[in-house]
Amino acid sequence: MRANNLTLLTDLYELTMMQGYFKNPTDQIVVFDMFYRDNPCGGGFAICAGLEQVIEYIENLRFTDADIEYLRGLSIFEEDFLEYLRSFHFTGDIYAIPEGTVIFPREPMVKVVAPIMEAQLVETAILNIMNHQSLIATKAARVCYAAKGDGIMEFGLRRAQGPDAGIFGARAAVIGGCVGTSCVLTGQMFDVPVLGTHAHSWIMSFPDEYTAFKTYARMYPDACILLVDTYDVTISASSDLDEYLIESLKAQDAKINSWGVGTRLITSNDNPAFGGVYKLAAVKNPETGEFVPKIKLSENTAKVTNPGNKTVYRIYSKSTGKIKADLICLADEKLNPDETMVVFDPVDTWKKTKILGGTYEVRELLVPVIKEGKRVYTSPSVMELRAICQKEQSTLWDESRRFSNPQKVYVDLSPKLFEVKRELIEEMSRK
Amino acid sequence: MRANNLTLLTDLYELTMMQGYFKNPTDQIVVFDMFYRDNPCGGGFAICAGLEQVIEYIENLRFTDADIEYLRGLSIFEEDFLEYLRSFHFTGDIYAIPEGTVIFPREPMVKVVAPIMEAQLVETAILNIMNHQSLIATKAARVCYAAKGDGIMEFGLRRAQGPDAGIFGARAAVIGGCVGTSCVLTGQMFDVPVLGTHAHSWIMSFPDEYTAFKTYARMYPDACILLVDTYDVTISASSDLDEYLIESLKAQDAKINSWGVGTRLITSNDNPAFGGVYKLAAVKNPETGEFVPKIKLSENTAKVTNPGNKTVYRIYSKSTGKIKADLICLADEKLNPDETMVVFDPVDTWKKTKILGGTYEVRELLVPVIKEGKRVYTSPSVMELRAICQKEQSTLWDESRRFSNPQKVYVDLSPKLFEVKRELIEEMSRK
Repeated sequence: MRANNLTLLTDLYELTMMQGYFKNPTDQIVVFDMFYRDNPCGGGFAICAGLEQVIEYIENLRFTDADIEYLRGLSIFEEDFLEYLRSFHFTGDIYAIPEGTVIFPREPMVKVVAPIMEAQLVETAILNIMNHQSLIATKAARVCYAAKGDGIMEFGLRRAQGPDAGIFGARAAVIGGCVGTSCVLTGQMFDVPVLGTHAHSWIMSFPDEYTAFKTYARMYPDACILLVDTYDVTISASSDLDEYLIESLKAQDAKINSWGVGTRLITSNDNPAFGGVYKLAAVKNPETGEFVPKIKLSENTAKVTNPGNKTVYRIYSKSTGKIKADLICLADEKLNPDETMVVFDPVDTWKKTKILGGTYEVRELLVPVIKEGKRVYTSPSVMELRAICQKEQSTLWDESRRFSNPQKVYVDLSPKLFEVKRELIEEMSRK
Repeated sequence: MRANNLTLLTDLYELTMMQGYFKNPTDQIVVFDMFYRDNPCGGGFAICAGLEQVIEYIENLRFTDADIEYLRGLSIFEEDFLEYLRSFHFTGDIYAIPEGTVIFPREPMVKVVAPIMEAQLVETAILNIMNHQSLIATKAARVCYAAKGDGIMEFGLRRAQGPDAGIFGARAAVIGGCVGTSCVLTGQMFDVPVLGTHAHSWIMSFPDEYTAFKTYARMYPDACILLVDTYDVTISASSDLDEYLIESLKAQDAKINSWGVGTRLITSNDNPAFGGVYKLAAVKNPETGEFVPKIKLSENTAKVTNPGNKTVYRIYSKSTGKIKADLICLADEKLNPDETMVVFDPVDTWKKTKILGGTYEVRELLVPVIKEGKRVYTSPSVMELRAICQKEQSTLWDESRRFSNPQKVYVDLSPKLFEVKRELIEEMSRK
């Protein structure tokens, strides 16, 4: 039933394009960025998650004999290309923003630097994994924020979109802030707390409710949450909960301090897709070794990509520890925290703010995770990622965490990158 | 990265309840029904899918040494119970409505008849698998209906909620009517057509658009769909499509006859959970061998369950082949198609219709798939299921397939079952 090898977890067009590049030889090294354009649920941020599974996918990328046989049967691939696939493995570099990090639109979350055929093949799986887990981690962070410190238990397995959505969705939910999950397999795989109560069927299988409760409570004295919402309208804290209902119940001073959240968390019900994309940003000039920036224009300004081999710096206020702004730069740019800088609002560029030299600290968000095809990064445990994510969220002002009309954090381009982009747009427009 | 063994794909409470039953010995044989209450997206029906994966899950249910070791580490399970798990396997019977079948609210889609510990354990995985695939198959059926015979290609892998949501979501989408999928792994696993075009990055890696198109078209003359929506506003048939937008574009006579549908199909964007539940319906009297009906009452009338060991009959009009009504009955009831029957509207019970004897045919929807723990059912191939599903949908009037305010198909209880339910409600209310 389960596919162990995810190498064919890819869109067909990745393979037809690979063959296209194979047949029109190019040893181009390229840069692809994965980024997203809009925060889920109209929020002010997202939480990055899924990286460990991306690394494992890359490490295990191999076409088996059965895979080659299957592809041959499609009658669109030629023997020399199939032979090339037989010894295929990933040889490039990958940089990524660590899991649990607060991220904002248009920032490269994952950057792939590799021969074009390799970079193309891995597109679909990287998007699938990162889109899913970042979505659920973000939703969980929102639900936990609404609960103001109460424990949120992830209880959605039965409504998740398939086994992986339950298993890895629960992983992401714990990273985002849940205290544990009902999914035993997630507990086993990632060493996170597993939690639960009992079902209506337990009560129904005893002669009366009292005997059912007493029997359960005697067996599980330390972990006993009784399900008392069954036959009458009482306090029910697990029915169709999400961040909005929890916020409202908290505002009404509901006497609940532990919440089991199901469907609306595990599916991110009101926004069930993260929308991450994967775009070509640069091509290496084989003679000079320099990365030549590439841009994708669009009628829709928001869809014009940021060109070049880039990195992301986060600017923290020294006095508050809060994020002042993020700066997307070319990869070889360095920031000097002694210098005053002016950063612009990402959308309304006439809004700007000056950050005085000496008042801020700088952190580069992208870190190397794969070098020449080999893992160079050890992921923290899921519970460590949860702690990291808590700390990350404390670098946001409440204004950026609220659900309604959150304050946008400035994500600016460095002057150098801005100039590269402007020139490319002008050049393309002239064509 | 991937869990091969899904035995621990269960909520913790299934295991704590199992231990509860183990410690308070009962050899009760019980009946659980999986059913749903509301059609996805406000539609008039759903499509049943996921059964083959449920059967495989049941066949492979085994606690490994590592599973036992993990459960022991939780410090809530006792050694005699862990020892019992070590030799655990499923010994019961399962009946199900075959994949691709049109189904309606409150009908048992899967019926489990087994010792209570076994029936309890399998709840979560059955719900997870059936909820997911039935959701996507139903969404696909809607999208295909909107396209009025045009081919719909499933292209959503990158936005699916994790690998399984992509793999099995594509399987369900093909059952529901898609002509194929971009997901190569789904193609390999289920022998369905894989389809694709090329990405923007292909165009960007060539000196100009013309060279890029020409190179691609020369390589794939038979399967060439060019992506021409990149730089300018042209016909774009893959951006955020769903059944509503396709219906609107068709109404405007758009010159498109092949549609790639992504995010909104693979996540069922406007309704991302199916909402199936799993409820105790009967307990076998070990002395008489009879099934004693059980009911779950609720303040919410729609949540009162249908008691008893049941089956579902579908009534077809002999003259049109269309569905006249469904009848939920006790499992030992037989219908005589020579007799005239009166069936009631499921919600407005004052609406009723008389079906004359001799004018209708009867089909029992639930079929045995597992007997005493062993598979007794061979699933058709996915492409066969697609054909079955097409035929199934042709048994609906257009009035039940339309998106806005669809006509509800009558799903009635047999007089005998109605009486059992009424008596139980009265008895419970007296307590």
